Amino acid sequence: MNTSIQFDATGKLRHFLTIDGLSRELLVRIMDVAESFSSVTEQQVKKVPLLRGKTIVNLFFENSTRTRNTFELAAKRLSADVLNVNIATSATSKGESLLDTIRNIEAMSVDMFVVRHEASGAAHFIARHVAPHISVVNAGDGSHSHPTQAMLDMFTIRQYKGDFSKLKVAIVGDILHSRVARSEILALNALGTEEVRVVAPKTLLPIHAESLGVKVFHDLDQGLEGVDVVVMLRLQKERMSGAFLPSEHEYFSYFGLTQERLAKAKPDAIVMHPGPINRGVEIDSRVADGPQSVILRQVSNGIAVRMAVMSMVLGGYGETHSGGAV
Amino acid sequence: MNTSIQFDATGKLRHFLTIDGLSRELLVRIMDVAESFSSVTEQQVKKVPLLRGKTIVNLFFENSTRTRNTFELAAKRLSADVLNVNIATSATSKGESLLDTIRNIEAMSVDMFVVRHEASGAAHFIARHVAPHISVVNAGDGSHSHPTQAMLDMFTIRQYKGDFSKLKVAIVGDILHSRVARSEILALNALGTEEVRVVAPKTLLPIHAESLGVKVFHDLDQGLEGVDVVVMLRLQKERMSGAFLPSEHEYFSYFGLTQERLAKAKPDAIVMHPGPINRGVEIDSRVADGPQSVILRQVSNGIAVRMAVMSMVLGGYGETHSGGAV
Amino acid sequence: MNTSIQFDATGKLRHFLTIDGLSRELLVRIMDVAESFSSVTEQQVKKVPLLRGKTIVNLFFENSTRTRNTFELAAKRLSADVLNVNIATSATSKGESLLDTIRNIEAMSVDMFVVRHEASGAAHFIARHVAPHISVVNAGDGSHSHPTQAMLDMFTIRQYKGDFSKLKVAIVGDILHSRVARSEILALNALGTEEVRVVAPKTLLPIHAESLGVKVFHDLDQGLEGVDVVVMLRLQKERMSGAFLPSEHEYFSYFGLTQERLAKAKPDAIVMHPGPINRGVEIDSRVADGPQSVILRQVSNGIAVRMAVMSMVLGGYGETHSGGAV
Repeated sequence: MNTSIQFDATGKLRHFLTIDGLSRELLVRIMDVAESFSSVTEQQVKKVPLLRGKTIVNLFFENSTRTRNTFELAAKRLSADVLNVNIATSATSKGESLLDTIRNIEAMSVDMFVVRHEASGAAHFIARHVAPHISVVNAGDGSHSHPTQAMLDMFTIRQYKGDFSKLKVAIVGDILHSRVARSEILALNALGTEEVRVVAPKTLLPIHAESLGVKVFHDLDQGLEGVDVVVMLRLQKERMSGAFLPSEHEYFSYFGLTQERLAKAKPDAIVMHPGPINRGVEIDSRVADGPQSVILRQVSNGIAVRMAVMSMVLGGYGETHSGGAV
Repeated sequence: MNTSIQFDATGKLRHFLTIDGLSRELLVRIMDVAESFSSVTEQQVKKVPLLRGKTIVNLFFENSTRTRNTFELAAKRLSADVLNVNIATSATSKGESLLDTIRNIEAMSVDMFVVRHEASGAAHFIARHVAPHISVVNAGDGSHSHPTQAMLDMFTIRQYKGDFSKLKVAIVGDILHSRVARSEILALNALGTEEVRVVAPKTLLPIHAESLGVKVFHDLDQGLEGVDVVVMLRLQKERMSGAFLPSEHEYFSYFGLTQERLAKAKPDAIVMHPGPINRGVEIDSRVADGPQSVILRQVSNGIAVRMAVMSMVLGGYGETHSGGAV
Repeated sequence: MNTSIQFDATGKLRHFLTIDGLSRELLVRIMDVAESFSSVTEQQVKKVPLLRGKTIVNLFFENSTRTRNTFELAAKRLSADVLNVNIATSATSKGESLLDTIRNIEAMSVDMFVVRHEASGAAHFIARHVAPHISVVNAGDGSHSHPTQAMLDMFTIRQYKGDFSKLKVAIVGDILHSRVARSEILALNALGTEEVRVVAPKTLLPIHAESLGVKVFHDLDQGLEGVDVVVMLRLQKERMSGAFLPSEHEYFSYFGLTQERLAKAKPDAIVMHPGPINRGVEIDSRVADGPQSVILRQVSNGIAVRMAVMSMVLGGYGETHSGGAV
């Protein structure tokens, strides 16, 4: 897909659809702005007036209360007005086309669509068709991209580990269907991570996975050896009923993260997970709740990163240009 | 129904239930106030503090995401607090009567009910029973009235065409079941429109339609001849299964608006539709998306007109009296 | 259950879970603060900035539009941001545990959970597990407790009757399953009410009901004799199908409140009901709508009392200590 669509004619970030095509400088800038918002959420009054009078529409074609909540809170803490539109129960039930729905809501003088859709490319499609003053943020499209999740993960890694160029990161689980994995691999590579690994059974890997810029492992113990960061992916239960996996129990015995297995990683390795976690499926509770887990910090960082992205695309806050120095 | 209920003892607009009984001066005043709000929605900060601290309840007994969204946005841009109450899934499921529900919510010190109901007269019923400090705005009741839709249409016509006394307006489609048509006919006549036409098959016209103050046409080409404004109505698909219409295809061939047919109207005629449109049923896509279509402008104007009505009934903004000059 | 959990180390009210363990002084203070907010809801601008920048999460595991609406309005009038999370349709559908859901939302830097749950003890459970800066308000848990309802009832009684030490109060109906009754009995006794009565058929009374500090009556006429306040409970229709009650009609003939029966109470007795009322089941319409009914005043007071509780646990507003004088 065309990635230059994310920038306006002056090179300013206008949409946030994918990590693909974003420079290292821009990713760092997003994290810097998120850092400034982290302190906002620790203040007594957690609001800043940056987007006062702006209208942000949560356009969710796929149910995801958790992601919608974080975007809603991020928008409210920027003082924007939020309109939640659940399309499954909305206008499309009257047979209206996606484009007519979009045209209609944009005519209400809104400023941003936060889009979640089960089809890959949906956010790009909408970005290509919205009016010039409207920004689109991708909140997850099919198995394609989930860029704010990737950025909150990068932000979390930076908080704990600092310099990416000295890090080994392992992403474990269903790489094939994971928009999170796809976005994280792009971000980690853009940030110059020393080594990005994926660890998965062959049935849950895309073909030619190496071409993504990763080292491929089919054995968890080998994949975790000496890493600084472990990213566990959620195993979608629906994969179990298909041809992809034999059983939950079987999966856990080969790819579930236990304390014993985590010991293969560096002693100070951190464990991440985009949530919601399946305890006893991809991760053992003692690991999820243990001292190396930073899973809840990821959630907190999700608010700050979404505030950063929203304020940058809408308000020009922390403004930068796509490739250059600032 | 009693229309004087819309005014308080001093003649000030208190409820907005129907166009019936409203003076030309008042309709013009609503459009003037809406005009002032149009610029608000184009500002960087789209909010005005007119209704700060007021509580507006969206009381929707009938699902209509689109209309509710515009009322919600209008209320938020006036800085009011909004409470969305979907009655289908709410207290009435506990067997509570409509009146008990109303009494209960009004006891929460709310200021306005925006009511959508599938029964004609519901908004009037509620207006008759609410406490003296509460206003009711009708967001559509059965096949009776949809006065804010009519006013946003009038506002749109005025923006493009100016003086109503020189206009010929054709309303095309299911006049019989349309609250939009009923409210528009009243508004167009109150504003002194030169000629109001309705164009429909006999099965979709009320008996004695002429008594509404319109010229009746059963042929689309004849009905469009020389008009300045074409208002296409949405064809409810459920009419198809009844005795009203033979088929979608048949309907389109006789009453669907194509470019060829639109050529019968004046060259600068505008095309309107309350949405959501059924492409290929009542309107061809080339017309809906064509240069004469002002359908999306109607949506934008819907926000401004609802801001106008809400601020007038609640805040006395742009205050006027029912019959007199200002 | 442990009631000291409601206070922090300095004795300040941190959670509001149950009336049990709260001092007379604290209950009076809540009513005093509510009184100050009553005037707020009568002002033109019904908002105060006490909780600006705070995030309050309505965490409803059980559907209750009415209660959620009052908490949402109370929060908005304190200028807090509100996030409505309906757990039935939310994360738990992905198989996440209650504790993971809580941990996740609290990581979003929220300040308060308002919890409604069908299981007794749910709010306590959550309070025991939330982060130190978060407050929990119980909006009804199973048949255990509904403390804000009890406090709005106390506040209403105080407005009409003043000194509790001279009052006889009768609570009539399904005492066995009623969290409202349980909380009211505790509050009335803490406030030194002269006599608290419960009036119910034996099948709808807990065993050893007297141990709650009440006089038990099985005959409505006797139970109402000379009382100042009558609290009618809602009869859950599902009790009818069980072994508890023969029929609605039968119930009304023995325990329904009619004007004739109300005449047994003092002439100036007030009639209360937590709503929604079942007309003709536990209460006759002439009583519900009659001059002695204060049912709608209870609803209004519900906003003020919830504003009081929220501002006290979160903001330290109207601060007091658990046992002592102020």
